[in-house]
Amino acid sequence: MEHLGKRKWIIAEGYIPGKSTGPGRAFESHETACILNTGGEPANIEVTIYFTDREPSQPYRFVVKAERTFHLRFNDLTEPESIPHDTDYSALILSDVPVVVQHTRLDSRQSENALMTTIPYCE
Amino acid sequence: MEHLGKRKWIIAEGYIPGKSTGPGRAFESHETACILNTGGEPANIEVTIYFTDREPSQPYRFVVKAERTFHLRFNDLTEPESIPHDTDYSALILSDVPVVVQHTRLDSRQSENALMTTIPYCE
Amino acid sequence: MEHLGKRKWIIAEGYIPGKSTGPGRAFESHETACILNTGGEPANIEVTIYFTDREPSQPYRFVVKAERTFHLRFNDLTEPESIPHDTDYSALILSDVPVVVQHTRLDSRQSENALMTTIPYCE
Amino acid sequence: MEHLGKRKWIIAEGYIPGKSTGPGRAFESHETACILNTGGEPANIEVTIYFTDREPSQPYRFVVKAERTFHLRFNDLTEPESIPHDTDYSALILSDVPVVVQHTRLDSRQSENALMTTIPYCE
Repeated sequence: MEHLGKRKWIIAEGYIPGKSTGPGRAFESHETACILNTGGEPANIEVTIYFTDREPSQPYRFVVKAERTFHLRFNDLTEPESIPHDTDYSALILSDVPVVVQHTRLDSRQSENALMTTIPYCE
Repeated sequence: MEHLGKRKWIIAEGYIPGKSTGPGRAFESHETACILNTGGEPANIEVTIYFTDREPSQPYRFVVKAERTFHLRFNDLTEPESIPHDTDYSALILSDVPVVVQHTRLDSRQSENALMTTIPYCE
Repeated sequence: MEHLGKRKWIIAEGYIPGKSTGPGRAFESHETACILNTGGEPANIEVTIYFTDREPSQPYRFVVKAERTFHLRFNDLTEPESIPHDTDYSALILSDVPVVVQHTRLDSRQSENALMTTIPYCE
Repeated sequence: MEHLGKRKWIIAEGYIPGKSTGPGRAFESHETACILNTGGEPANIEVTIYFTDREPSQPYRFVVKAERTFHLRFNDLTEPESIPHDTDYSALILSDVPVVVQHTRLDSRQSENALMTTIPYCE
């Protein structure tokens, strides 16, 4: 139950498309940070959202339990404020124990969805 | 015949879409971990699957032969149990010799397929 | 307000599709380098564009403000010259302070768009 | 004219779709390794292709000129042999000077194309 990964992760390309097609939550346009905590202690996560032309928004706080994965949808963040759609942003994800993050977007603005994923920058 | 790569690989974003369109296995919605063993010895692989709200499932075991590639479909794993579809998961891939892994998903829930790929986190 | 990231980033796969479908700027085929400056000082950026069969084009210069993100569209670069469409290129991005870059392309040549993203090479 | 990058690159996920739709070479299903040589000396490249159930195929040799990019299509390789389509493979790319590689696939088997890209593993 070793804590694998890093404590600092950065997704530079953030953008939640403002429209969706298709049935239900699965096909709603969304952006996720999938976070895996392989270790035996819970991971306390703190996210900062950066914008083009205003002060960063933070902190967004949540916990990823020991030996669990959590697929965070940025669409679901509400405290301290929701992330506006159709707006450029970036995300800094800090954890108090090492975790692994992967970034994904599903864009369903058009009738056939598009997908992209990457491992973010970490250190 | 040097063993290039790393021994620990983590795919944080796991999700096998539960529906498919298009003909045959090639267009079935699937998620793969493509594993290359460049060295002269076989690679003994052990995979652990992590979930959001239950204990991890492991071990999934298989061998990648010397100087061969193996494109593992997570859909095909059955022992100790199949990976449920439409369900968030993450994968830890351990090898006894260095290997290189790449993660890909083909999503054919809609009539035109979507693709995504990344190198996973490794250490 | 620590400067996270690296000073040298390279996008080897550059290509701006020459056609677009769909309404407005959001659906125009484009390629972006999303740049996050987490630190307290502005980041002075200098980009060099490499081609297959001619001398590199440079310098493209701009600033990413402190604690801000900037989603650069390569389509928008005009000085010293525009980047030709339907043409293979690569980009070297240099910053005087550490920043984080992510590369994305939206290809709308066909009626349903396609997306891809990756963290570029950095050092 | 510094040589940025690494000398060893590995694309674990190789697969050239066997069908294409859309007009001309631009929409032909293809897989590329985009290689940037930022330095003042030519880069001598040697590629090895690995398969699931047969010996590797090599060497594929070519040169990337100083301060140039080369977007290699695996479809175009013919010596010592063409890469079969609809077949799993992996690629090891060796260079005598540091270069940067990015991997991309355009899949046009269906009427709307799909894209994916990643930076490959390097060391």
